[in-house]
Amino acid sequence: MEQEAKFGEQEPEVNLDRRKMMVGTGVLTAGLLLTKAGGLLGTAQAKSQMANWPWPYVKLDPDETAELAYNEWYRVYCGAGVFSSIFTQLQEKVGEPYTLVPPETFIFLEGGLTGWGTACGSHVGAALVTNMIIGPRTTGSHDGPMMGSEIMQWYADAALPTYTPKDPRYKGKMITTVSDSPLCHVSVGRWMKASGHSLGSEERRDRCARVTASVAHQTVTLLNQWHDGQYQTKGRLPSASYGITAQHNCTSCHGSDVPSPPMAAKK
Amino acid sequence: MEQEAKFGEQEPEVNLDRRKMMVGTGVLTAGLLLTKAGGLLGTAQAKSQMANWPWPYVKLDPDETAELAYNEWYRVYCGAGVFSSIFTQLQEKVGEPYTLVPPETFIFLEGGLTGWGTACGSHVGAALVTNMIIGPRTTGSHDGPMMGSEIMQWYADAALPTYTPKDPRYKGKMITTVSDSPLCHVSVGRWMKASGHSLGSEERRDRCARVTASVAHQTVTLLNQWHDGQYQTKGRLPSASYGITAQHNCTSCHGSDVPSPPMAAKK
Repeated sequence: MEQEAKFGEQEPEVNLDRRKMMVGTGVLTAGLLLTKAGGLLGTAQAKSQMANWPWPYVKLDPDETAELAYNEWYRVYCGAGVFSSIFTQLQEKVGEPYTLVPPETFIFLEGGLTGWGTACGSHVGAALVTNMIIGPRTTGSHDGPMMGSEIMQWYADAALPTYTPKDPRYKGKMITTVSDSPLCHVSVGRWMKASGHSLGSEERRDRCARVTASVAHQTVTLLNQWHDGQYQTKGRLPSASYGITAQHNCTSCHGSDVPSPPMAAKK
Repeated sequence: MEQEAKFGEQEPEVNLDRRKMMVGTGVLTAGLLLTKAGGLLGTAQAKSQMANWPWPYVKLDPDETAELAYNEWYRVYCGAGVFSSIFTQLQEKVGEPYTLVPPETFIFLEGGLTGWGTACGSHVGAALVTNMIIGPRTTGSHDGPMMGSEIMQWYADAALPTYTPKDPRYKGKMITTVSDSPLCHVSVGRWMKASGHSLGSEERRDRCARVTASVAHQTVTLLNQWHDGQYQTKGRLPSASYGITAQHNCTSCHGSDVPSPPMAAKK
């Protein structure tokens, strides 16, 4: 990753062929005139809007966002739930480019990518939000990816779920657990072991809905700081410390026999 | 996941408030007229285009796509590399909605999510492609997410990299390894152990560029089958088999002491 950071200086290359073509035919001019007249944006602008970083952002209420995410979990699950809770508000308050992206696209993040138990969809959904709004590192700012990384660390450290909905579907006591990992399998597994509840239980399902709400709450809290110019990332690149892409919980899988990666001098 | 499948019957809900508003003011009509006249789409259409599943797709050459992905790795890394190799071609051959989404958005998938070693970005990039084009399971077809899941399984089973570029940057012999896992940490770690090369080495970097090319090749191969009505998914939901979201390589982390998840009857 140290080497990879060198590539962060490049400017993003956006395909502008069609835009150029439209300028040549005068169609873009018509689009711009219409924009002034009625707020309707032409396609050439619409496509570049998603690459026009950072996107316009207005501060959102973390509790309201968490409530939306909690309820959205029961429709589209963790990744799309976090994404939808933030994007649907900004579709209303800002409009484009938020209106371009249907949150349902990201339903597949459920269960750590279609049930594979890899990265929990909630923080991948959060990273999609921060990288779409703030932009990739090729824009010059690393805040988008590093805010996503910070949320992964927060997720691994927190006693989840941290957020309690105003009117939760499950009315009993909700056990919290620390995953020490950003992986769905570990996060859900530790909670199932501590609670004794199965994957299909009402309790586990409400737990993951509340985790989704918790991550949405944390994401908006950080985005609001960023909006106010107060965001100082706590995100880290684990690969820069370990000589391999990695989590911080080496012994969880390796036990006491943690292998050392090859550290040969770079050629 | 068995329970979660129940939610697959819902139709996606796309925010159409702005569209309704524009119809009310007559602006949408102006946009539609302009579309007929000059091919320029209004915003209200542009936003729904990404939710208009399945997207128009034309068959791509797997080898050409792999070459693009290989070179894109050196600019935007694994996840955005797979995404870009397919989307940039379809931006040219189809236009919208492909032109709406800048591939650089997904640079953060590098290193298993900003260097954390979770899901390898290459197959997450592939899943973004298949879910954007074919659509989420709420459309009625499960081919989008299941094609992504099938690519994860293929990734775990294959001796990677499977694709050799026409003019590779690294000219020496490229060792291949089977990860038995969709995780970047395991995939890269096994290759580093077998090859003896460090994370920052030219060899490891070219290995990951070739893995990116390999996944892009496989993704287009499956998308072409789908286009021809020949796609029969081999994708599975591991969570349905194990009672927990999971990979198939339980002993890789748990050794011989694989815990049994709680399997209490659903309430």
